[in-house]
Amino acid sequence: MIVVLKKDATTEQRRDLIEWIESLGLDVHLSEGKFQTILGLIGDTANIDKELIEGLSIVESVVRVTDKFKMANRKFHDDDSCFDIGGVKIGDGNFMLVAGPCSVESEEQICEIAESVKNSGAQMLRGGAFKPRTSPYDFQGLHADGIELLLKAKKLTGLPIVTELMDMSQLKYFDEVDVIQVGARNMQNMELLKQLGKTRKPILLKRGLANTVKELLMSAEYIMAGGNEQVVLCERGIRTFETATRNTLDISAVPALKEFSHLPVIIDPSHACGIARYVKPLSLAAVASGADGLIVEVHNNPERALCDGSQSLTPEQFGDLAKSIKKVRDAIL
Amino acid sequence: MIVVLKKDATTEQRRDLIEWIESLGLDVHLSEGKFQTILGLIGDTANIDKELIEGLSIVESVVRVTDKFKMANRKFHDDDSCFDIGGVKIGDGNFMLVAGPCSVESEEQICEIAESVKNSGAQMLRGGAFKPRTSPYDFQGLHADGIELLLKAKKLTGLPIVTELMDMSQLKYFDEVDVIQVGARNMQNMELLKQLGKTRKPILLKRGLANTVKELLMSAEYIMAGGNEQVVLCERGIRTFETATRNTLDISAVPALKEFSHLPVIIDPSHACGIARYVKPLSLAAVASGADGLIVEVHNNPERALCDGSQSLTPEQFGDLAKSIKKVRDAIL
Amino acid sequence: MIVVLKKDATTEQRRDLIEWIESLGLDVHLSEGKFQTILGLIGDTANIDKELIEGLSIVESVVRVTDKFKMANRKFHDDDSCFDIGGVKIGDGNFMLVAGPCSVESEEQICEIAESVKNSGAQMLRGGAFKPRTSPYDFQGLHADGIELLLKAKKLTGLPIVTELMDMSQLKYFDEVDVIQVGARNMQNMELLKQLGKTRKPILLKRGLANTVKELLMSAEYIMAGGNEQVVLCERGIRTFETATRNTLDISAVPALKEFSHLPVIIDPSHACGIARYVKPLSLAAVASGADGLIVEVHNNPERALCDGSQSLTPEQFGDLAKSIKKVRDAIL
Amino acid sequence: MIVVLKKDATTEQRRDLIEWIESLGLDVHLSEGKFQTILGLIGDTANIDKELIEGLSIVESVVRVTDKFKMANRKFHDDDSCFDIGGVKIGDGNFMLVAGPCSVESEEQICEIAESVKNSGAQMLRGGAFKPRTSPYDFQGLHADGIELLLKAKKLTGLPIVTELMDMSQLKYFDEVDVIQVGARNMQNMELLKQLGKTRKPILLKRGLANTVKELLMSAEYIMAGGNEQVVLCERGIRTFETATRNTLDISAVPALKEFSHLPVIIDPSHACGIARYVKPLSLAAVASGADGLIVEVHNNPERALCDGSQSLTPEQFGDLAKSIKKVRDAIL
Repeated sequence: MIVVLKKDATTEQRRDLIEWIESLGLDVHLSEGKFQTILGLIGDTANIDKELIEGLSIVESVVRVTDKFKMANRKFHDDDSCFDIGGVKIGDGNFMLVAGPCSVESEEQICEIAESVKNSGAQMLRGGAFKPRTSPYDFQGLHADGIELLLKAKKLTGLPIVTELMDMSQLKYFDEVDVIQVGARNMQNMELLKQLGKTRKPILLKRGLANTVKELLMSAEYIMAGGNEQVVLCERGIRTFETATRNTLDISAVPALKEFSHLPVIIDPSHACGIARYVKPLSLAAVASGADGLIVEVHNNPERALCDGSQSLTPEQFGDLAKSIKKVRDAIL
Repeated sequence: MIVVLKKDATTEQRRDLIEWIESLGLDVHLSEGKFQTILGLIGDTANIDKELIEGLSIVESVVRVTDKFKMANRKFHDDDSCFDIGGVKIGDGNFMLVAGPCSVESEEQICEIAESVKNSGAQMLRGGAFKPRTSPYDFQGLHADGIELLLKAKKLTGLPIVTELMDMSQLKYFDEVDVIQVGARNMQNMELLKQLGKTRKPILLKRGLANTVKELLMSAEYIMAGGNEQVVLCERGIRTFETATRNTLDISAVPALKEFSHLPVIIDPSHACGIARYVKPLSLAAVASGADGLIVEVHNNPERALCDGSQSLTPEQFGDLAKSIKKVRDAIL
Repeated sequence: MIVVLKKDATTEQRRDLIEWIESLGLDVHLSEGKFQTILGLIGDTANIDKELIEGLSIVESVVRVTDKFKMANRKFHDDDSCFDIGGVKIGDGNFMLVAGPCSVESEEQICEIAESVKNSGAQMLRGGAFKPRTSPYDFQGLHADGIELLLKAKKLTGLPIVTELMDMSQLKYFDEVDVIQVGARNMQNMELLKQLGKTRKPILLKRGLANTVKELLMSAEYIMAGGNEQVVLCERGIRTFETATRNTLDISAVPALKEFSHLPVIIDPSHACGIARYVKPLSLAAVASGADGLIVEVHNNPERALCDGSQSLTPEQFGDLAKSIKKVRDAIL
Repeated sequence: MIVVLKKDATTEQRRDLIEWIESLGLDVHLSEGKFQTILGLIGDTANIDKELIEGLSIVESVVRVTDKFKMANRKFHDDDSCFDIGGVKIGDGNFMLVAGPCSVESEEQICEIAESVKNSGAQMLRGGAFKPRTSPYDFQGLHADGIELLLKAKKLTGLPIVTELMDMSQLKYFDEVDVIQVGARNMQNMELLKQLGKTRKPILLKRGLANTVKELLMSAEYIMAGGNEQVVLCERGIRTFETATRNTLDISAVPALKEFSHLPVIIDPSHACGIARYVKPLSLAAVASGADGLIVEVHNNPERALCDGSQSLTPEQFGDLAKSIKKVRDAIL
């Protein structure tokens, strides 16, 4: 951590500051120049509150050189993490293809889609039971009944299931769910993250609309610090000024997250763009960039879907996509 | 709501679509042109799911003309709302000045600040007991003990108190709290909003970092649709590319929110910029733009604050600010 | 174009407006509802100034349904455009790989890089002679001498060359340049675009940091409206809140631009991320997404490059990249 | 400037780097720690190319502590700059109110508006003759004839005039123009800035849509480095995700620019929001935040303006605004 002092700091003030920092267990190196004086803080600065130091009157600015996340940090964990989710592996070279509808609507719907995407090569089933919608007047999901239907589809096809939890009060329904999804709007719901750190289920953590990749890793750290190290990171588009797509897929997040962290990184192309006909090019881009998996919306009748129909593939389109994904995977190995 | 059809839509497909829309209780006006055909949907479209229609194969695009929020909408509620909060009025010409530390740290700290800001003209006390921090290793607040200390300061000074709730499990501590704050990171925690809709306490709803003013109003609508109409909107800076300030204060949100809605609008200049010496110019700008109030961070020892010290005013600076606010208020009446 | 009228517009005002719109050669369809009245403007609305109509006191909002660009619009030009640039084809299935240093520094440097990238499969040479730098104190390029050196490298290797023009006063040096590049900072330098419309050289038009894909197409339209239809569009990263990369590569711009327009679309991964080790994953993502080409920075001694060294590949890294590009191209055919 | 080295840098590599930096005339202080080694570069680092050092293989990251702008920097110029523009003062406590139409349309129009805004208290007349429009099919201004008409209005009223120059080829028409405006789209047209540095006319430099305040100061530096120190900075809204206003007025830019620089700072509320009814609240906010002036669009017939009518005030509205500005100015003194 680098602390730049103001020009008018007195020698006494400096000495006080240095002593205080040393009392926190850090070493301090002083570099004095004509235009500024710089303190280099050496040691374990992850627990130091940067804003606390910025608040001191003799400090001009503070720059963090070491990231605050530790358990999620590749620096302390060289090898890629790899998780086994109901027999399906993800990470460290294993690619995971998740597919399914935005919302669970009926037993017939979810079972038909589950069988179809399984035949096309999906290894896991997604489907929303608790739905976070911008408007209180939009369809909010089937709740516990939706989970029941997902479990029927799981029994039928053997596919592990991933579905979103919006509040800890819903956890009682998640006993047989294989992966708990934390949605983008809840990425910084710190209480939820803390509680999920106490569970022992893999967490699919979606990046918030306006959160940096480092903030995503800080949220993963919340879960891991609680004792649950199975976090799968998911890029699903960020909010920018561009309006041609619903959000802007930040494809650079793949190499960036894989450099900063050992956790698996997957892409959600459907929510990133919101347009079914862009899902294939974005999915292949994600594969080529080195992503560890994809989570894709598929619906057997997108035109009558209760939610997000405009971004869902038909089962036929998904089958075609799965074949292309395999080819691009082979090309980059 | 306007629906633009694709050029290749057949007469039959159009007829099907029009019949289906009419079955939802709406009237349809057809405008046919050389380059596009347009349907005008007339009636109560607030409950229509725009994405559902966008998902139809013959639809090119859909434009919503009427906003989805109703209870928060000025169109259906011409007059400014005005709430009485423990004897303090806000809205409809009443300006509310809230001040206090980012975090409650000790009885001495919160009581000293409370007395000081009261003497300078603050009408309400703020202070965080449950703190949402980006890092799990940063100070997380005093929790229930922090609420206790706030209540002591309330008893001492008579100032109503506002403090943040992060999860419904904390509600049991909020019985004597006057205003419940929903933080920016929870603005779209829909489960929390629904539950708060069932309480009868005023809610201070902060705008999310990447949320539009219309999304803020949709979140207010979640609370209001539950039966709790006392929502105070708070602009606290949005995330942009600019790095000179922590966030970018969207001052235009004041006239925009007041045009779209009848709810009171306040500004949090401290979190918006993150720099104590910019708080005064931004506060006066907020007053001049027509805001109904301010929520300002004040600390008796900003240099040793456990959180956000760099953006806190000293009690003296706050006293000076309060005087200037009064002058600008007088100038714009 | 859709015009939504205010509720309080009188019958007379409406009639006046409709007559005025009809006098512009358009048909008007009126849809009258309880909450709003809508005019559908049918005809060639590309020349209508949307803001002019928004300015009318009885108008609430205006939505453009037909885009303003015509010559660049795929609606009026179904087939992909394909240009022949010094014997190299781009567009309509032809992929173009451009490589070279950020700045031309010396004859030895540019010739060595040119030979090396040619051997690895590059079909065109890039190199900056006139450099737009944020600071007046940074290296500004070799100017006319730089063009001379590029021409020597062209003669040596036969590779066509692309280089940036910053001002029409520099055009006299571009006689033997094959492609004129317009940089991101000049994307809306309308005078420059108009003048380039009068030349007959292919233009590589880079997207501005904060410009939408539709604005990029409007800028292409400026050039094309002048009579020069050979415009190659280039996505090179947009400005967002994320700081892990210099800019955010908007990979969705590839399918979006190819849907809206018939012009070829290439990607500049080097400027998009600013980090050499991310150039390969982003390049392969661009290929997989369907881009028509890539423009990549390569330097024989990146550590001593006078400009942008941190994002340049070595010739060896470029050779490796070129092989991977070929494999991914084959996989998606 | 702080240079953070990679963990695996050898002692030899470090020594080479330090010697090279010292050869540039800087002192180097080394801070060695368990997790990272840091070099503090002390001396005049304004001319050091940060990206050059970032490009070195042993460097992890580089942080600039001293800004690159010098002539625009308050650190080297404590007092506010104050310019005399045709008898009107701006800066150092002098407030300048500029008003006029977006485009000059006719002699009658510009003269009528000029007289009206003068009577209401405007001290300078604005009006566009060369107009940068997004579409080549929109009205592009009256060009040289427009300047002629502005000069007639100047003669009539005595008001100095400010108008935009888009290309140096237009400079010949600007002999009697008092202030040359550089538009947002040209803020980083470096060739234009360099040429304007050779003129001796005050420059009104508008901030680019996606440019930081420090980049605005770097562009001012381009002009000042050429010998022309009369630069007035203008904030006119930045591009964000919010769509309720055309751009987002960054009101914090006022205190930020005034802290970093001694140059006068004015606000253009009309282009910032694009909505006439928000111009008054935003103007008063600008005044209250400490801006040195305002440039406001006024039109005698906004509903028939050839450009930007929707954001123009009527002369009556401007008169009312001017009175309120005076009151708020008095309140903050």
